[in-house]
Amino acid sequence: MRISELAKRAATPVTAVKYYQREGLLFEGIRTAPNQVEYGEAHVKRVRLIRALLETGGLSIAATKDVIRALDAPGAPLAETFSVASSALATPRAAEVRASEASRERVKSIAHSLGWGFTGDNPGIEGAARALEGLDAIDFDAPGEYLRDYAAAAALAATADVRALTALSDPDKIAELMVVGTVLGDPLFAGLRRIAQEDATHQLFPVDTNRDRS
Amino acid sequence: MRISELAKRAATPVTAVKYYQREGLLFEGIRTAPNQVEYGEAHVKRVRLIRALLETGGLSIAATKDVIRALDAPGAPLAETFSVASSALATPRAAEVRASEASRERVKSIAHSLGWGFTGDNPGIEGAARALEGLDAIDFDAPGEYLRDYAAAAALAATADVRALTALSDPDKIAELMVVGTVLGDPLFAGLRRIAQEDATHQLFPVDTNRDRS
Repeated sequence: MRISELAKRAATPVTAVKYYQREGLLFEGIRTAPNQVEYGEAHVKRVRLIRALLETGGLSIAATKDVIRALDAPGAPLAETFSVASSALATPRAAEVRASEASRERVKSIAHSLGWGFTGDNPGIEGAARALEGLDAIDFDAPGEYLRDYAAAAALAATADVRALTALSDPDKIAELMVVGTVLGDPLFAGLRRIAQEDATHQLFPVDTNRDRS
Repeated sequence: MRISELAKRAATPVTAVKYYQREGLLFEGIRTAPNQVEYGEAHVKRVRLIRALLETGGLSIAATKDVIRALDAPGAPLAETFSVASSALATPRAAEVRASEASRERVKSIAHSLGWGFTGDNPGIEGAARALEGLDAIDFDAPGEYLRDYAAAAALAATADVRALTALSDPDKIAELMVVGTVLGDPLFAGLRRIAQEDATHQLFPVDTNRDRS
């Protein structure tokens, strides 16, 4: 198929497809004439994947490149693929500001209290610690119960992630889901949480809401 | 205090503080001499909040501005503050690509199956639907069990959010936590999920991991 059909099939503008190619995210098509390049099903899937990582997952071009490279590495061990992708996608948007030791320790102690086995360089420690510091900026000192609920939610999702992996047998498919599922599980959770919040908020503030509408 | 101390106290570079001011995110200090402006504790807190929304929460400047404006509106009803902030922060990074009706329906049917009350324009529907489409791009048709686990995780977090709000009595503090907690709950969950995943992954692939290291 031509690039216009590739773009259409992947529900992505042609300009975006060309941009992915220029950035080295999308492998070349086959040149069948000086002016003509043919694309296949693999390109359609790859364009959809790139779009999902960039737009829904919110990854940078550089992080997307790392993830794609990890996925394409032939015969790479699963754990290695996952580790490359995991650190690529966990890179905070502004690496120069680091969370304090106290916030990092607080995150680790919750994880330890749940019996989780993890290494000290797990990128989630920094991410969660920075979120705690943001809450602290509005004087919200997250209570232990709140953090334990969030950790329980995280454990539920991580168990669902792992269960989905065990249902697969092809190592390439497993690697792909490990990486892409890690990226997209966050916006999936965020969307569902927004809906659950509307439900919970209406239950909490029925009077306020009515007053606004009167 | 001077701007240099404000920056130090908020652990933010002076250039960033000036940038926040230029963008209208940070209110002015008090000019005490032609060349001197004084800042107070309120500025320190505000700078830390802006940084958290922008960097940890990943909001755009425009969305951060909307959130701050909603927080600063004097006497605004809670539900209104929340609704302004919620739509500001849920704006997907690339609004031109919309999820298909089928994906949106799938999300709604999970939410309905859990008995959640929500409106059809809840921005979480679009966010979760786009995540499902991204998973679909790697041929992962998320099984019902997987989605239900994620929804249960979301409900746990939303309940924790609401419980934290009920512990407060000052309406301004409630509005602040509603908005900032909505933004920062996502990276808090994401960080904790990364840690829980390391634990779960090691349990799943102990052999692979050992093989890599040999």
